[in-house]
Amino acid sequence: MFRHETLNRINKLKQAAVKQNKPIRFAIFNPANITYLTNSTGAAGLFIPGEGETILFASAVNYEYLKSEIKGFDVQRLKLGEKMIDKLKQYISAEKISVDSLPIESWRWLSQVAGGEENLELINNLICELRKVKDEQEIMAIKEACKIADIGIQTAQETIQAGLSEKDLAAEVEYAMRKAGSEGVAFESIIASGVCCAFPHGASMNKIISKGDLVTVDIGAIVNFYRSDITRTFIVGKATDKQKKIYETVKLAHQKAYEAIKPQVSAKEVDYAGRQVIEKAGLGEFFVHNLGHGVGLEVHEYPVLSPNSRDILEVGNVVTDEPGVYIPGFCGVRIEDTVVVTKDGAEKLTKAPYASLS
Amino acid sequence: MFRHETLNRINKLKQAAVKQNKPIRFAIFNPANITYLTNSTGAAGLFIPGEGETILFASAVNYEYLKSEIKGFDVQRLKLGEKMIDKLKQYISAEKISVDSLPIESWRWLSQVAGGEENLELINNLICELRKVKDEQEIMAIKEACKIADIGIQTAQETIQAGLSEKDLAAEVEYAMRKAGSEGVAFESIIASGVCCAFPHGASMNKIISKGDLVTVDIGAIVNFYRSDITRTFIVGKATDKQKKIYETVKLAHQKAYEAIKPQVSAKEVDYAGRQVIEKAGLGEFFVHNLGHGVGLEVHEYPVLSPNSRDILEVGNVVTDEPGVYIPGFCGVRIEDTVVVTKDGAEKLTKAPYASLS
Repeated sequence: MFRHETLNRINKLKQAAVKQNKPIRFAIFNPANITYLTNSTGAAGLFIPGEGETILFASAVNYEYLKSEIKGFDVQRLKLGEKMIDKLKQYISAEKISVDSLPIESWRWLSQVAGGEENLELINNLICELRKVKDEQEIMAIKEACKIADIGIQTAQETIQAGLSEKDLAAEVEYAMRKAGSEGVAFESIIASGVCCAFPHGASMNKIISKGDLVTVDIGAIVNFYRSDITRTFIVGKATDKQKKIYETVKLAHQKAYEAIKPQVSAKEVDYAGRQVIEKAGLGEFFVHNLGHGVGLEVHEYPVLSPNSRDILEVGNVVTDEPGVYIPGFCGVRIEDTVVVTKDGAEKLTKAPYASLS
Repeated sequence: MFRHETLNRINKLKQAAVKQNKPIRFAIFNPANITYLTNSTGAAGLFIPGEGETILFASAVNYEYLKSEIKGFDVQRLKLGEKMIDKLKQYISAEKISVDSLPIESWRWLSQVAGGEENLELINNLICELRKVKDEQEIMAIKEACKIADIGIQTAQETIQAGLSEKDLAAEVEYAMRKAGSEGVAFESIIASGVCCAFPHGASMNKIISKGDLVTVDIGAIVNFYRSDITRTFIVGKATDKQKKIYETVKLAHQKAYEAIKPQVSAKEVDYAGRQVIEKAGLGEFFVHNLGHGVGLEVHEYPVLSPNSRDILEVGNVVTDEPGVYIPGFCGVRIEDTVVVTKDGAEKLTKAPYASLS
C-alpha cells in the first residue's frame, strides 16, 4: 500500500548518495532500514541496483508472505541454508557499493565478495538523515501509536494501587495497548516504583507498589512498524513536599523544553532549556540522561537532544521530551511526551494528562 | 544471586581462550553475552582483564541499578555523552585483546584504540560454544519459561474461535503469560490462521479467524532472561481429510525427531529424522526451514538442527523440535517443543497437549 512512498525513499537515498559522491548501488542489511525502504519486515536484505527494481532477499520462511504483500520489488527466495551474501555475489561485480551497516564478521565476508574492502562505502548516516524527517504517512502511524500509548497510561492510572506488583501493572498496560491495536510493545515496559524510581531504566519487577510511592510508567506502542514513547509519574496516595518539589521541577523542565522545540533550533538548545530548570533547582546532578531522542521505526533514532548534539531540528522530526530527576535511595520522576516538529513550532502527539500531585 | 555461576563462566571462557591460543583479556559487547557473564542486563559492555575483577561499564541511566544488583564486578559509570570505547582506552594497552562482536563502525574505532586491527581477535564462537551447554540454573529458568508458555498455549486453545482476530488472540495469550510471571514475550508472537498458516513467520495481523481454519500459535516466555519457544496448531471446527493428513505427518516428524535427540548424535541426523517423514509423505518441498535451533538467552542460538549443521548434541543443549509443512494458498501446520538433551536422551520442557484433529 505504501509502494509510492517507498520508491520515493529509495530515490531520495540515491540523490543523497550522488550529492556525497557515494556509489548508487546499495546493499542494505539493517532491519529498520529495510522496513523504511520497503514498508515490510522479514527480509534478510536488499540490493538496490543503479537502475531497475530493488531486489529483496527472503528466507523461505518469509518468502511467500513478502511475495504476496510487497509490490514493486523483485522478491528472491533464499534456499534452505543459502546465505544472502552468497546470493548477492551474482549482482556485485568488482565495483563500489554503498553498505548501511554490518557486524565485522559479515563485513569481512562481503569485502571478499566485493573484491576488497576498498569497494565498500559505509552510508548508514545517509539513511539516518532521511529517516530523521518523517513524511505524512509516517507521522500518521506514529500519531496512532501515540493514541494507543495514551490508552496504556490511562490504564496505568486506573490500575495503580498499593499491593499491586510492577509486573502485574505492566501486564494490564500492555494488554490494554494490544487490545487497542498495538503490534506489540515499542520497548520493554518500564514500571518503577518507590526507591526503584531512582533507576531510570529499571524494568518491571516483582516488587510490590506501596502507599506513598512515586510510580514511573514508561511505555510505547507500535502501529504499522512505527513506535511511540511516553512516560508519566504517578503518586500512590499523597505526595510529600519533597516529592512535590521534584515533580514540579521536572514538569517545568518538560514544559520549557517543549516550548524550545521548533524548526532551525539546535537540539542541544532544547536539551539546555530543560536542563537549566533542573540545574537552577539544585538537582542538576540527578538528571543523568539526555533530554530526548528521535522516535520512528526504532525507539531511539536521530535527532538526539543532548548537551553535545550537532542536530538542528527540522519540520517532520519526531522527538521525545523527557527530563527526569533520580535521587538514589529516595525516588525518581520522569515526564515524557512524543513531539513532532511543525512549521509553527511543535505538537505533542502523546496527550495523556499529567498526574496531579497536590 | 548467580555470582558463583557467572564467575565460573568467566573462568571457563578464559580456559577456552587459552586452549585456542587467544588473548585472555576480553572486551564483550553483545547484550546476550553480557547477560551470560553477569546475569544482568543494561550494561554497555564488559572488560575482563587477565587477572582481577571484571569491569562492567554502565551509562548513568543503568548505573545505580547495576551497582545495587550486581556483586563481584567493578561497575563503572559512563558520564553523560561518554562512550564505552573511550573509557576502555585506559585499560587497553597495545596488547592483543579478544572481542566477541561489533558493528564495523565500532570495530574500526576499537582498532584505533587497541593500536591496530591486528591486536583484536574475534572469539564470539568461544562464547557461543559455552552458551550451547546450559548449566542447572539456566535449565531451571528455561523450564519455568516453558511452563509459562504452556499456559499461553492453554489460553490460546480456550480462546480460539471463529470471529476473533489474530491480534486479539495474541493479546489474550501474551496477557496470560505476563500474569503467569513472564518478563515479556520471548519473540514477536506468531498467530497465523487459514491460508496465512502457510506463512511460517507471519506475525499476528488484523485477520479474522474463520471456521475450518488451521491456526498456528508460536509463542514464548522469558524468565530470568531465559526464553522458551512452543508452537501448537489448532483447528477451528472440523478438519478436512487433507488437513488431517498434513497434521499427522508433521506430528509424526516431530515425534521421530524427538526420538533422535540424544547426546553424541549429530544435529543434522535429528533434522533428517524429522525431514524424511515429511519427504516420504511427498511434502518435502513444503518443509522450508530447519528442524530446530538452540534456545537460551536468545531465541535462536546454537546448536542448529539443520541439514548442513556441524553441531554434535551434548548433555545440556536446549533445542527446539519444530517441523512444519506450509502449502501456499492452502494451509500450514507446525508443531514445536523446547527440548533439553539429557544423559539418557531428551526431555520435553514444554508439555502442553497436542491438538487432536479427529
